[in-house]
Amino acid sequence: MTPRAAARPGGRSARVQQSVHTAVRELQAEHGRDDLTVPQIAARAGVTPSTVYRRWGSLSELLSDVAVERLRPETQPADHGNLREDLEHWAADFLEEMSSPPGRSYIRDALSGDPDGSNAGQCSGYAVEQVTTILHRAAERGEDVPDTDTVMDHIVAPLMYRILFRPGLLDPRYARDLVTTVFYRLMPLP
Amino acid sequence: MTPRAAARPGGRSARVQQSVHTAVRELQAEHGRDDLTVPQIAARAGVTPSTVYRRWGSLSELLSDVAVERLRPETQPADHGNLREDLEHWAADFLEEMSSPPGRSYIRDALSGDPDGSNAGQCSGYAVEQVTTILHRAAERGEDVPDTDTVMDHIVAPLMYRILFRPGLLDPRYARDLVTTVFYRLMPLP
Repeated sequence: MTPRAAARPGGRSARVQQSVHTAVRELQAEHGRDDLTVPQIAARAGVTPSTVYRRWGSLSELLSDVAVERLRPETQPADHGNLREDLEHWAADFLEEMSSPPGRSYIRDALSGDPDGSNAGQCSGYAVEQVTTILHRAAERGEDVPDTDTVMDHIVAPLMYRILFRPGLLDPRYARDLVTTVFYRLMPLP
Repeated sequence: MTPRAAARPGGRSARVQQSVHTAVRELQAEHGRDDLTVPQIAARAGVTPSTVYRRWGSLSELLSDVAVERLRPETQPADHGNLREDLEHWAADFLEEMSSPPGRSYIRDALSGDPDGSNAGQCSGYAVEQVTTILHRAAERGEDVPDTDTVMDHIVAPLMYRILFRPGLLDPRYARDLVTTVFYRLMPLP
């Protein structure tokens, strides 16, 4: 969220946000993401262009906000009964989603219209929440668990780095190999 | 590099590239990065706007190419006589450079005007080269060395992830802690 949008105010302001976000999603689905303009979005949303500029500052900040909303996970991580499988499935799903063409576009949009870094922080916040849920569940089962930052640093970060910078090296085994490394090498020492 | 620019052709074409890149750098230094327009860049470079569009496609692709050039390391990694110090110093320098305000802008520019991912690939290629140099030197000294991808996945990737997504968690000790983890936990098993 940009500071302007962070307040999530109710009433007219919330309706404007929703109709503008919906307009962006519809136009992206119809035209692809490279051709959007603020006047076109405003017309579809039934607001004036100056409303969009006043609220979001620029097209890229608006696209960043929309992208972050689309990156929000819709479900809790699945419970497979043990930590290893929970992490393997979650990491495989994360990789598949984020490395898809829409996933890559959303990550790029989220990063590029984000002058203060708060939208990028929101993206990693989603991953932190999901990982924390998985680890908490495992700890309640009595399993040994790594801490959240170990999973962020050594599973999520390498996945995201390859998605953004080295996509040629991604394959379905990679997420599983990172989980194996955490299990055999990076668990807390007794 | 975008495909158009990848050929690095000589003669007039190379001169155009150089004068346009120089114009972008000068204008960014004078005005900041948010206000640039193609006509303004073309005027400073002494070319027509259509030359810029023909060659780079869009402003964001041009800015991406310029950013990648600026992220190119200017020197070989320093030789401190042992792998651990070489990696600690290199990782600390990488963190300092990439997390600085200009570093962050270049990374964001490199990623955002990069439809085919080749500029992002070039950025990670620079890191791969530097890490490979460090590891090769250590192997020649007879030290045990991790492989390049272990360093990319467990030092470079976590650094870049926090730079882009979790800047509040960066501190100077972090790079050193990642090197320690590789040394004590992720070296090749005998």
